Amino acid sequence: MTSPLSEAARNALLGVSTATLTTQLFKRGLRNVFVQGARPLNPNGPPMVGPAYTLRYIPAREDLDTLDVFADRTHPQRKAVEDVPAGSVLVMDCRGDASVASAGGILLTRMMVRGVAGVVSDGGLRDSPEIARLPFPAYCRGGSAPVNLIKHHAADLNVPIGCGGVPVFPGDIMVGDGEGVVVIPAAIAEEVAHDAAAQDVFETFVMERVRAGQQTFGLYPPNEETKQAFAAWKAKGK
Amino acid sequence: MTSPLSEAARNALLGVSTATLTTQLFKRGLRNVFVQGARPLNPNGPPMVGPAYTLRYIPAREDLDTLDVFADRTHPQRKAVEDVPAGSVLVMDCRGDASVASAGGILLTRMMVRGVAGVVSDGGLRDSPEIARLPFPAYCRGGSAPVNLIKHHAADLNVPIGCGGVPVFPGDIMVGDGEGVVVIPAAIAEEVAHDAAAQDVFETFVMERVRAGQQTFGLYPPNEETKQAFAAWKAKGK
Amino acid sequence: MTSPLSEAARNALLGVSTATLTTQLFKRGLRNVFVQGARPLNPNGPPMVGPAYTLRYIPAREDLDTLDVFADRTHPQRKAVEDVPAGSVLVMDCRGDASVASAGGILLTRMMVRGVAGVVSDGGLRDSPEIARLPFPAYCRGGSAPVNLIKHHAADLNVPIGCGGVPVFPGDIMVGDGEGVVVIPAAIAEEVAHDAAAQDVFETFVMERVRAGQQTFGLYPPNEETKQAFAAWKAKGK
Amino acid sequence: MTSPLSEAARNALLGVSTATLTTQLFKRGLRNVFVQGARPLNPNGPPMVGPAYTLRYIPAREDLDTLDVFADRTHPQRKAVEDVPAGSVLVMDCRGDASVASAGGILLTRMMVRGVAGVVSDGGLRDSPEIARLPFPAYCRGGSAPVNLIKHHAADLNVPIGCGGVPVFPGDIMVGDGEGVVVIPAAIAEEVAHDAAAQDVFETFVMERVRAGQQTFGLYPPNEETKQAFAAWKAKGK
Amino acid sequence: MTSPLSEAARNALLGVSTATLTTQLFKRGLRNVFVQGARPLNPNGPPMVGPAYTLRYIPAREDLDTLDVFADRTHPQRKAVEDVPAGSVLVMDCRGDASVASAGGILLTRMMVRGVAGVVSDGGLRDSPEIARLPFPAYCRGGSAPVNLIKHHAADLNVPIGCGGVPVFPGDIMVGDGEGVVVIPAAIAEEVAHDAAAQDVFETFVMERVRAGQQTFGLYPPNEETKQAFAAWKAKGK
Amino acid sequence: MTSPLSEAARNALLGVSTATLTTQLFKRGLRNVFVQGARPLNPNGPPMVGPAYTLRYIPAREDLDTLDVFADRTHPQRKAVEDVPAGSVLVMDCRGDASVASAGGILLTRMMVRGVAGVVSDGGLRDSPEIARLPFPAYCRGGSAPVNLIKHHAADLNVPIGCGGVPVFPGDIMVGDGEGVVVIPAAIAEEVAHDAAAQDVFETFVMERVRAGQQTFGLYPPNEETKQAFAAWKAKGK
Repeated sequence: MTSPLSEAARNALLGVSTATLTTQLFKRGLRNVFVQGARPLNPNGPPMVGPAYTLRYIPAREDLDTLDVFADRTHPQRKAVEDVPAGSVLVMDCRGDASVASAGGILLTRMMVRGVAGVVSDGGLRDSPEIARLPFPAYCRGGSAPVNLIKHHAADLNVPIGCGGVPVFPGDIMVGDGEGVVVIPAAIAEEVAHDAAAQDVFETFVMERVRAGQQTFGLYPPNEETKQAFAAWKAKGK
Repeated sequence: MTSPLSEAARNALLGVSTATLTTQLFKRGLRNVFVQGARPLNPNGPPMVGPAYTLRYIPAREDLDTLDVFADRTHPQRKAVEDVPAGSVLVMDCRGDASVASAGGILLTRMMVRGVAGVVSDGGLRDSPEIARLPFPAYCRGGSAPVNLIKHHAADLNVPIGCGGVPVFPGDIMVGDGEGVVVIPAAIAEEVAHDAAAQDVFETFVMERVRAGQQTFGLYPPNEETKQAFAAWKAKGK
Repeated sequence: MTSPLSEAARNALLGVSTATLTTQLFKRGLRNVFVQGARPLNPNGPPMVGPAYTLRYIPAREDLDTLDVFADRTHPQRKAVEDVPAGSVLVMDCRGDASVASAGGILLTRMMVRGVAGVVSDGGLRDSPEIARLPFPAYCRGGSAPVNLIKHHAADLNVPIGCGGVPVFPGDIMVGDGEGVVVIPAAIAEEVAHDAAAQDVFETFVMERVRAGQQTFGLYPPNEETKQAFAAWKAKGK
Repeated sequence: MTSPLSEAARNALLGVSTATLTTQLFKRGLRNVFVQGARPLNPNGPPMVGPAYTLRYIPAREDLDTLDVFADRTHPQRKAVEDVPAGSVLVMDCRGDASVASAGGILLTRMMVRGVAGVVSDGGLRDSPEIARLPFPAYCRGGSAPVNLIKHHAADLNVPIGCGGVPVFPGDIMVGDGEGVVVIPAAIAEEVAHDAAAQDVFETFVMERVRAGQQTFGLYPPNEETKQAFAAWKAKGK
Repeated sequence: MTSPLSEAARNALLGVSTATLTTQLFKRGLRNVFVQGARPLNPNGPPMVGPAYTLRYIPAREDLDTLDVFADRTHPQRKAVEDVPAGSVLVMDCRGDASVASAGGILLTRMMVRGVAGVVSDGGLRDSPEIARLPFPAYCRGGSAPVNLIKHHAADLNVPIGCGGVPVFPGDIMVGDGEGVVVIPAAIAEEVAHDAAAQDVFETFVMERVRAGQQTFGLYPPNEETKQAFAAWKAKGK
Repeated sequence: MTSPLSEAARNALLGVSTATLTTQLFKRGLRNVFVQGARPLNPNGPPMVGPAYTLRYIPAREDLDTLDVFADRTHPQRKAVEDVPAGSVLVMDCRGDASVASAGGILLTRMMVRGVAGVVSDGGLRDSPEIARLPFPAYCRGGSAPVNLIKHHAADLNVPIGCGGVPVFPGDIMVGDGEGVVVIPAAIAEEVAHDAAAQDVFETFVMERVRAGQQTFGLYPPNEETKQAFAAWKAKGK
């Protein structure tokens, strides 16, 4: 869909915070980029970076959403688990309804084994205690035991969706840290990665000064004097 | 998509209440059929029956959703207004967000002129005082002035959607009265129309008896004696 | 349960507003007396006064809540319709869930015919357009077509309940006007009725003065001068 | 605070819809201008235009918010009623909590008599059936009988507030119609009034054409041909 | 009320997940069995199994709900703490309101000492940091310091209730794990326990295969080949 | 503003739970004192005691709330960070909106270095994983990456505000533990601290007895026998 993210950009994004990314996107006029309500099941797990592969749920219908649908290889949820490319992030639109699950421990383990970069849902995930122990980024509104068929009908794959109130187009870059998930439009992911990494270096400098007792006025945001100090600090190899 | 509704079924559905329809659908195992939150802007307007033609919105993105998109003939909302067949109902998935509009007075008037059967949205409609005076069924969460672009990106047409928490597949039969809107799966619309009309005749009889002072036990639901009295009442030509 | 409301108190309550009653109850330390979310289906209908007869719903269970339960004379909802005393108000605890109905047109008509004083629900009522035309006070969160069994299991009758976030004990006096419903504890209903009527007379005087251009300072609440003017106004037979 | 609105701008704003105003403000980068949840108590009442005079409520405290505070001439709510200038709109920040009132019939009548332009609250108003009969614009989340002291402590007057999720600075121009209320920043009110009136003329032309059967493509938004037809239509004196 | 759960069933339930149980109940037509919003205060604590003993709260009334009620041995909350049988689970209906507590550290410790199996509330629990350190299953919407009397009036014991949107009848089997709580109707608890344990064995086999790299198609749900492999795996003593 | 809290009272408050404080305040007629929804980012961090210094946000406006405002020394948020006195608590009114941040890691570190006692917000905090590792009390609705300007306009400092639904006047004593935050009106903080400490000693005695197997009737609340036993226990030096 779009040219893939460069390795440099991917590495940069693995190191920056979602907070920094929202600032970079705000500078570009994008205010609605943080997946509301999606928390990491394991806040101390690895960060997540990868292009979005989407799964869209609509409300379930009792006659269509029965347990036997899972035997069908074309069922969108089951197909997604095997088809989402390694390195991509499965993003699920559950209309924010976390009263049931959108996936569970077996499917997430399968995706982890396949090299998928992570999972984001604005619904629930079942087997959450087990998922919280996997070295695999999984974001959702919370653990929720009930089988997804009770509320969700898997409608289609890789169409534009909403997730946690944010638009997600297939190929958009999903970045997750211990706070949550940011969606970066594919077309600007490279430049945002670059500028976010630069912002993070500056904020490391700021934090050093703040810890040393400097006040924030003139420092954050920087005045000319601070800009020079920062340049010197960087030149010293920090 | 499915064989069209017979004229007899359509007429039957124009005469029954959404309350009766939910009972018929409950008998068939369908519990989630009433579009939650969608009220008629004109409660005294005409009833609505027609197959669903769907428009799906996802959350807006500031760089994509600008006023000039409306000049594009392929923009899904504008295309929907001209393409929804006469006799059909335009059903819009706004994720239940009524903080902005999903359409307004000019577009609804155009659809009315084109012979569209009605409009259902789980978001807002702007120009609501004006729409409330049209002889055209329009259901939504309430009047809402802001332009739809502020929150909604028109994503695609005639795919399965959720509306007011209910699954809506293109071709499903939408029925609206002064209370709200029910969605009947296309495949069972004929039989539901038939049985609902029969139920309504019985309830007319029940209401006559209740107004005359009869108690509800044995009457509603009917015991054998009531069934015979109802048969006699019907035989008398009501 | 408690000694019945005197005819004088009942008549007084028919003439005062729910706004006035909340002030009287606030003076007595009761802050939570207005049934939140319950609106009259017919805002221009008659006012409502009567002791509470309660019906408690809990969430439905699919195996228990099937259409055939209505044939059972002991089913609490159906029993309530025939057992609620004339002059009383049927108050239903729906846990604030208006996604389905708690009763409909036939049952409300039966209660109207029986001389019941009114119905209050913190859920929905079906056949709402029809109910809105009855000369019968009916308060709810809104019209809602789906049959009550989908979400509500009728549990028991005449136990203390919550309705719209307010405690309602059987026998408490329910008063409804075009704004909503207030619950007066049975033990203080007589004195509240008396004081509310007196407050209303004073506010009629205040409104006359306000319409004539008097400022509110010193008038509302009254200073000594206003109290004397009010005494004179009353003495003149107004 | 700011130069007052010109009479021409005021008249223009009395004639345009809130829908049109949100489009004009969206063009200027302002997306959050419609007071969410505030409905007119009398949808058929007069439109409203005037600068904002604000009253800020914070949550009540039982020891501070007792009935005797109303006797104090410095109590912000009571002071507001007498101090809001004729022609201005009283805007109340209730934190969106409509479980109690923010004002009632006597105070609104006083303001109407004083020539105040209207009242906007993101809470409730008590005596709503009475207010709905006044020829006075009153917008709120709904009728709510309980006295304001139960939840609201009047904190101060004429500071910037939020109302229905929208920022309101004293002097901003509040415009209300049958749909709701829009807030126009004072500095751009003149130009917005002018452009909105022009937009409304164009939409009147569009509606004429739509009623006559013209399709919306090329018409709304207009292509060159439509622009010329509109110029001719205007030249003909319509 | 019902014959007690067998020791075998109890042990089976201690070992299965709530996710598995919702699937078993979904197979039996029960979709609403997971107590929404109730989380374990100590996610790493012991699992919970036991029949429900219920406590019903309605909204508080200021004149009835004062601190001295706790001295009364018949006060339902205090009576519950001493009367809930060892091995049972105290289930509290707080109408989902967690703005205050439903119980606290002292009462939970007393129940733990008495051998009660656990506590489930759809409200808050106070002293939550202390409770989180007890080897005692406690589920609620979150820690909440305020005394229960502020919002909750203890109405009665061991009647059917709703908890987290789910119907709970006294004697129903409550099962809790690190994800949340499932309610099993008493009449089917034995068979559900048996089938859930069997499902868990199969899912252990599936997880082994998934970890080893097998794809999910044909495995989960199983085709004939997988069923044979599972039979062989079980025969080998796993 | 008010006479500062005595060192004895401050120490007492550092040792009592917020649960105990709500009971003491309930005894004094104050029911709404617990900041709803505010959780500690580090539940195992230090307790918090200090007078409130307030920051009020209203909804943002796109033309006013741009990144360059932070360079202005009078910007209320930035000014607050440098001006909140050591020993005080910064309390932020975000109208309960946690979809964006109200502050982040750098500003909180600066306040920690300055000796501020803690931070309370009814919105979000960004950099939450980093803040959770600081030895600094920080309470909010949850981690939220987006920059505050997207939703919040910093309006003013040290005015009365609402926070989590609770009134907070500058100088009120904020107390936080692992459960949440309680607001004590400044005028009664000394006596509440004293009585809460006494209550805590008694509850320590009660907990000892409960752990030893004593039933709660007669113990909690205490009868005469228990009061004597408690007096003896205290006399023994505990």
